[in-house]
Amino acid sequence: MRLVGRSRRSSGLQEILVRSGAERAVRCAVKKGRLDKTTDTSKTYVVLKVQNLKSTTIDRRGREPCWEQDFMFEICADGKGFIIELWKKGLLWDSILGVLWIPLATVEYATDEGPGSWWRLHSEVIKNGSEIQGTKTPTSHEILLDIYFALPFAMILSEIVAKF
Amino acid sequence: MRLVGRSRRSSGLQEILVRSGAERAVRCAVKKGRLDKTTDTSKTYVVLKVQNLKSTTIDRRGREPCWEQDFMFEICADGKGFIIELWKKGLLWDSILGVLWIPLATVEYATDEGPGSWWRLHSEVIKNGSEIQGTKTPTSHEILLDIYFALPFAMILSEIVAKF
Repeated sequence: MRLVGRSRRSSGLQEILVRSGAERAVRCAVKKGRLDKTTDTSKTYVVLKVQNLKSTTIDRRGREPCWEQDFMFEICADGKGFIIELWKKGLLWDSILGVLWIPLATVEYATDEGPGSWWRLHSEVIKNGSEIQGTKTPTSHEILLDIYFALPFAMILSEIVAKF
Repeated sequence: MRLVGRSRRSSGLQEILVRSGAERAVRCAVKKGRLDKTTDTSKTYVVLKVQNLKSTTIDRRGREPCWEQDFMFEICADGKGFIIELWKKGLLWDSILGVLWIPLATVEYATDEGPGSWWRLHSEVIKNGSEIQGTKTPTSHEILLDIYFALPFAMILSEIVAKF
């Protein structure tokens, strides 16, 4: 992680980090789901896709699956967001239940985990050429996500030093 | 699987099946890979994506991974193709090595497995709106696939009956 700017005030941190072109550390806790009745006896899992990377939760059964799994990744300054997918496990073939584009513009800096918020999954991806711009057409599935920019360690340290 | 047309000659089978609007059974054997040297110590796996479904091979280590896994699926008459992805396994995050669009127009009917053919993976997907049209920009990774339309059982039976 490359840090160019420095600040003595927390309020200016976000602006400086974005302006500096530094990679930002994103923390995403995939907490639980409120799915429709078609998933009563199914196992489901969540996939995070960031640029050319992906990571997957374990699978959990039922309409209110508790995945409770944390993901941390760095995203470059011009990265606009990332993708969340919800999949239903099958014997041979898994089927997609919904997709969600999380725009980084909606994400804020935080130092610790919060309660998160519920996101409704969609069934369609909106693309501009090969670039994803969003998702549309709501499904009846929702997931609870807690997403925030983690403060880079070097920045936290300089904050502490500045107090003395 | 819905069958509308019937034929007594094998040569007319493909045409009749396509014209009938029946779903076609596709068989895809994912045999092995010839990957570049960056994958020497990595584990890789292959993902097949067909409409809203996906299935995955086990992961195999090295530059010449032998997945040797068979996949069978039905694709509706207006389905134009399916996607093959090659992924490198990571501790927390997997990274994509290449992607391939297999157009059904290149697939033929067969009754049994063949030697297959080598396909070079690409790094970019070509889309028209939300519809995938192809892939471009070759990578240095190749995979050996044996892909064919399996003859539907009812059709084989009518062929046998016709002989008596």
